[in-house]
Amino acid sequence: MTEPTASAAAPASRIRAAVVGYGNLGRSVEALVRRQPDMELVGVVSRRAELPTDAPIIAVDDADRLAGEVDVLFLCLGSATDIPEQAADWARRFTTVDTYDNHGDIPRHRAEMDAAARAGGNLALVSTGWDPGLFSVNRVLGAALFPEPQQRTFWGPGLSQGHSDAVRRIPGVVRGVQYTIPSEEAIAAAKAGREGIGGKEAHARHCVIVADPADHDRIRETIVTMPDYFVGYRTTVEFVDEAAFEAEHLGMPHGGRVITSGDLGGSRSSVEFGLELERNPDFTAASMVAYGRAAARMHAAGRRGAVTVLEVAPYLLSPVGLDELVARDV
Amino acid sequence: MTEPTASAAAPASRIRAAVVGYGNLGRSVEALVRRQPDMELVGVVSRRAELPTDAPIIAVDDADRLAGEVDVLFLCLGSATDIPEQAADWARRFTTVDTYDNHGDIPRHRAEMDAAARAGGNLALVSTGWDPGLFSVNRVLGAALFPEPQQRTFWGPGLSQGHSDAVRRIPGVVRGVQYTIPSEEAIAAAKAGREGIGGKEAHARHCVIVADPADHDRIRETIVTMPDYFVGYRTTVEFVDEAAFEAEHLGMPHGGRVITSGDLGGSRSSVEFGLELERNPDFTAASMVAYGRAAARMHAAGRRGAVTVLEVAPYLLSPVGLDELVARDV
Repeated sequence: MTEPTASAAAPASRIRAAVVGYGNLGRSVEALVRRQPDMELVGVVSRRAELPTDAPIIAVDDADRLAGEVDVLFLCLGSATDIPEQAADWARRFTTVDTYDNHGDIPRHRAEMDAAARAGGNLALVSTGWDPGLFSVNRVLGAALFPEPQQRTFWGPGLSQGHSDAVRRIPGVVRGVQYTIPSEEAIAAAKAGREGIGGKEAHARHCVIVADPADHDRIRETIVTMPDYFVGYRTTVEFVDEAAFEAEHLGMPHGGRVITSGDLGGSRSSVEFGLELERNPDFTAASMVAYGRAAARMHAAGRRGAVTVLEVAPYLLSPVGLDELVARDV
Repeated sequence: MTEPTASAAAPASRIRAAVVGYGNLGRSVEALVRRQPDMELVGVVSRRAELPTDAPIIAVDDADRLAGEVDVLFLCLGSATDIPEQAADWARRFTTVDTYDNHGDIPRHRAEMDAAARAGGNLALVSTGWDPGLFSVNRVLGAALFPEPQQRTFWGPGLSQGHSDAVRRIPGVVRGVQYTIPSEEAIAAAKAGREGIGGKEAHARHCVIVADPADHDRIRETIVTMPDYFVGYRTTVEFVDEAAFEAEHLGMPHGGRVITSGDLGGSRSSVEFGLELERNPDFTAASMVAYGRAAARMHAAGRRGAVTVLEVAPYLLSPVGLDELVARDV
């Protein structure tokens, strides 16, 4: 097995990219691919014949005709069912990138994608995005620096899709979102390496709901007593009218940080990697596109099978060649 | 050329490490190597026959006897003259890691180390540490995420060795240190992607000096009018007595952050990598030791010549094997 070398990885020809799936993530990936200096968009693969794009639309059943014409296929599919059911089939036919985010299931997904990609002579870059993805990279990097690392990941402030779905399933909830807010005290403790702040105390949960006033008390009680999702967290519920919801709660902000600290022989250090995102799918797409560049280059240099973000050398993410990156870092 | 694969890079035998140079950095590297689960300390190479260590001391002129007994040699030598004069000679004989930090000269250093390491069948991992080093990695990563990245690096709050040396050269200065303090306003502007805050406005400089009161006015004037080092910066000079200096200004705190932000199609995101270090040499050593692990593994897998931090896959820094890292990232 060979890997890209400095010279092999210098941008030579443009990377031909296609997108599968056209939800929030797929649309963001499409827009970002168009802005890359070293990529061209071959088209969007979809079950729908009409999409709000001027890119070529390729039917899913017709995708085999892209063989040899696509260097990387962005799998912009949901982690709940689409990726487990469809990703391996794509990896047999194309070099792929995905954002599979079911953390506990990633080893199984990696193994399945490895077998499929090897069978087809392809590469499958699995579980990109930011968590898993960039946060995974920073957890490994941070922990590697300390003999006895103390590490915490905080999420937010931001909108949690899973918790928002949970509150919207409550009868009587017309509109609803849930914001996750990390505790400033817990963040300060993590930097100082202090123990004692448990998982549920490290984040607060704030729900914003549109509902008939007659239902408010019942909805509030249902939320704060919901096991797994809210019990044990400092949870607040705010009711607003439809106009206020429309004006202030349609965005998808998110963010988070990985903090690692530890003793280095009588002195302490802390390392932090943090994100502030106005729109979560756009940033997930940005990570996916950069890793798509790496996938195409590593495949071109002979690498096959599943690859995790932990195996990607940083310069492979950049459209700038390695020598130029080294020269610029003055 | 081959690169380490997942299986090849799983920790097999212990990495045999030696340290050249026994200043602040060398002592920190020695202490950290002893705390790594997968490394053993072969000894310290020095021109001095006696050092405050119980590790074997090997004379510089006798170092050839370490051939075949050392997997990685940590070059804990100064960037001003030692590295340019001595590093290539070490790289011809051993796989090395250095922290050469003369940014503008790194391309030349890399080329020289590449030739030397290839001649000897070795690998030379150049310019590790945190800037260059971890900050270089994060500048490349951050910029790769945005079509039009806006990026700033801030240093401090922390002690600047070069500026401290400069104030100590002023006649009449008995003791002196200089702290670099980043502007909170400039940091906020960088996250928001606002322009207009120049390099010198982004950092303030605070000097703490011990001197005869009769010299204070002259020393202050000499500092604030010193070209390159202080002119144009918001500079403050504080005079303290010897006891206060001893009590509060003997540490080597430092830190900094790399902030990258940009538009991702109507939404903005910002990415930040930050460090808070109680003792600068300890953290530089921590980065160096982690990259030393990567150097030994990449050499064992067949890689030769100079390697930059941009070419190191993250999992190679960790003492934990790749499969276990993937399984743990839940």
